[in-house]
Amino acid sequence: MANTTITSVKGFRAAAIHCGIKKNGKPDLAALVSDVPATAAAVFTTNKVVGAPILVGREHIKSGILRACIINSGCSNVCTGKRGVDDAFEMCEISAATLGESNLTRILPSSTGVIGRFLPMDKIRAGIPQVIAALSNSEEAGHAFSHGILTTDLVPKTARETVTINGKKVTIAGCCKGSGMIAPNMATMLAFVATDAAIDRTALRTVMSDVTNGTFNCVTVDQHTSTSDTFALLANGLAGNKTIRSGGDLNKFAQALYNVCDSLAQQIARDGEGATKLVTVLVTGAANDSDAKKGAEAIANSALCKTAIHGGDPNWGRFVSAAGYSGAAMNVEKSACKVGKITVFKNGRPTDIDLKGVEHAMKQKDVLITVDLGMKKPGAVYRVYTCDLSREYIAINADYTT
Amino acid sequence: MANTTITSVKGFRAAAIHCGIKKNGKPDLAALVSDVPATAAAVFTTNKVVGAPILVGREHIKSGILRACIINSGCSNVCTGKRGVDDAFEMCEISAATLGESNLTRILPSSTGVIGRFLPMDKIRAGIPQVIAALSNSEEAGHAFSHGILTTDLVPKTARETVTINGKKVTIAGCCKGSGMIAPNMATMLAFVATDAAIDRTALRTVMSDVTNGTFNCVTVDQHTSTSDTFALLANGLAGNKTIRSGGDLNKFAQALYNVCDSLAQQIARDGEGATKLVTVLVTGAANDSDAKKGAEAIANSALCKTAIHGGDPNWGRFVSAAGYSGAAMNVEKSACKVGKITVFKNGRPTDIDLKGVEHAMKQKDVLITVDLGMKKPGAVYRVYTCDLSREYIAINADYTT
Repeated sequence: MANTTITSVKGFRAAAIHCGIKKNGKPDLAALVSDVPATAAAVFTTNKVVGAPILVGREHIKSGILRACIINSGCSNVCTGKRGVDDAFEMCEISAATLGESNLTRILPSSTGVIGRFLPMDKIRAGIPQVIAALSNSEEAGHAFSHGILTTDLVPKTARETVTINGKKVTIAGCCKGSGMIAPNMATMLAFVATDAAIDRTALRTVMSDVTNGTFNCVTVDQHTSTSDTFALLANGLAGNKTIRSGGDLNKFAQALYNVCDSLAQQIARDGEGATKLVTVLVTGAANDSDAKKGAEAIANSALCKTAIHGGDPNWGRFVSAAGYSGAAMNVEKSACKVGKITVFKNGRPTDIDLKGVEHAMKQKDVLITVDLGMKKPGAVYRVYTCDLSREYIAINADYTT
Repeated sequence: MANTTITSVKGFRAAAIHCGIKKNGKPDLAALVSDVPATAAAVFTTNKVVGAPILVGREHIKSGILRACIINSGCSNVCTGKRGVDDAFEMCEISAATLGESNLTRILPSSTGVIGRFLPMDKIRAGIPQVIAALSNSEEAGHAFSHGILTTDLVPKTARETVTINGKKVTIAGCCKGSGMIAPNMATMLAFVATDAAIDRTALRTVMSDVTNGTFNCVTVDQHTSTSDTFALLANGLAGNKTIRSGGDLNKFAQALYNVCDSLAQQIARDGEGATKLVTVLVTGAANDSDAKKGAEAIANSALCKTAIHGGDPNWGRFVSAAGYSGAAMNVEKSACKVGKITVFKNGRPTDIDLKGVEHAMKQKDVLITVDLGMKKPGAVYRVYTCDLSREYIAINADYTT
């Protein structure tokens, strides 16, 4: 299959250019446009400090219809007061005027990058007509778009699924940025997923919320919920399927969307700042869902756990003790811990395993840590994707703005 | 003043030896003994996974009287099941027998070090009579004790205050260990404070609880609440003052104890693993105490904030955004942020400051970050001590057990 990017979805065009925000010359202004108005939903950060584009985007998504997303990287337009909101609004105005779209609320603005700086609007004003002129449904345009939304990410993150719904081939494809300030809460960093499915607006919102909770909201790189988290999903109906409302078709669509978002979520964790591994933390045997989540997040956010994994150090006491302070109920006498498939701790005491084998499991590129809280069998389960914590993380973050 | 260690307190002797637990030959077995039974209180970790010595210590402290603390470093005796409890109990038995103390509950055991390993009891059995034979009230013995309880700490941490209570000089002196797995919750890592004050048991407990909340519980190095946190306070009454129960005398004693514990708490943060700075995070203008605490802890525990401080990078958006995701109520339009004395953010937007000055403030050895949540004037306030996050932290923790 040739094109696996977002432009492989019928009726979507994309582009990205360098308009001068980033000092390194990389693309910093990107656009995604549907040929026809698309049923749309978006979820945003729960941080109380939010970027100006979030304030505008929350209003614009209320209509449930989007034509375009306009995104800049290199400056997040956060902590910028009224001037920041005016700037985000102007990004929509210029985009709408250039596209000939009369309804301003059909444009969703996003910005990502350093906090506390005003957008260089001269560069953006000049750039938007250029990026819109560059729109294309080519694979190259899709790749350019996935690069244009990045900040400290090392690699672009894309995923694509197709599914047949009442005889019609439906495509879902998207991309996202991650890397730093990643602990999505009801949303994630920037993620844009397009589909040509025809789908009812309410059904779209419900599916999106479920999928987000099981994918993007299960990622943490550094526990720092961003001020710019946005996940937008656009469905333009050009696949020609009968509108999806419920039942088997909705389940099929939901599973395909889940696969796209789960892949993107794993890619975010694997490309976390300074990351050398994808770490999956699984908590089982919890008294309830909330406790399972608390336990898994405590492990995934612990610098001691993440450095042990980075070093391939079989210091499993850190995983058990992180669950212990998480606030989740825990029956230590019945609790257990596994590294990969090796049980290192069971019934409140160490097993007779050889730590060399544990060390080997921890030195892999994919590490699975399981802690059973011992409260119930099987009990509630929660899974978090994260990464290890390396010297490179410090290097990246000790001088990010300068 | 010559002796500023714990042995400067009348009627307390201390010692530490190397009994063979640590591979590097440093002291790993320490004892603190009062010549007479001392009124005592202790607080322990709130982690649900606790060391065997905590299980024994919680029982022993119920009598409110201690003669001795016996502490080993190099192995924490955590996640060790019934065998671990038997071992902790045996440490008390041998200590009591050697000291001629008939009441076993007057011995408080503590262990610190790696989790998930059994204590090398052959070495400890041989070591306890030796460390008790070495007990002395000399300054050297006090220093040895402060070294014997350390793990990855670079420097010993001691503090001392004197105060006159009804004409009698009262001394309070103590030491502690910190460095890693530091986010005390109702207690801290190992801290031992001795005083020759005569003080009522209930008054001692109340004062200790207040002081702990304002000092040790305000420290975080890595947000990882340890399984071994213990703060023990022994008051043997040998200063000859009239027993302190309430009023001005209690206030005087409380202030002196606060000064000792506040100094120890700051020393823990400054010597956090890999730390190059002492960072004080102050949150003001909060709607209530709980919100002030949430905001300050979110900033102090954010890897992005701690790396920015490490690099002296004036990326203040990280401080504001951490407060934003902390869960604390925040009025962004009235919020503010200061680095040292420089206001960088006010009324929801950046001030016109020169970032060079901010960079200078962030490059100091002592960095103060203030975030006002803008909810109330003056509003609730909370202060946390922490440190920066460096490559050295990763180096220390990626291969701690191996």
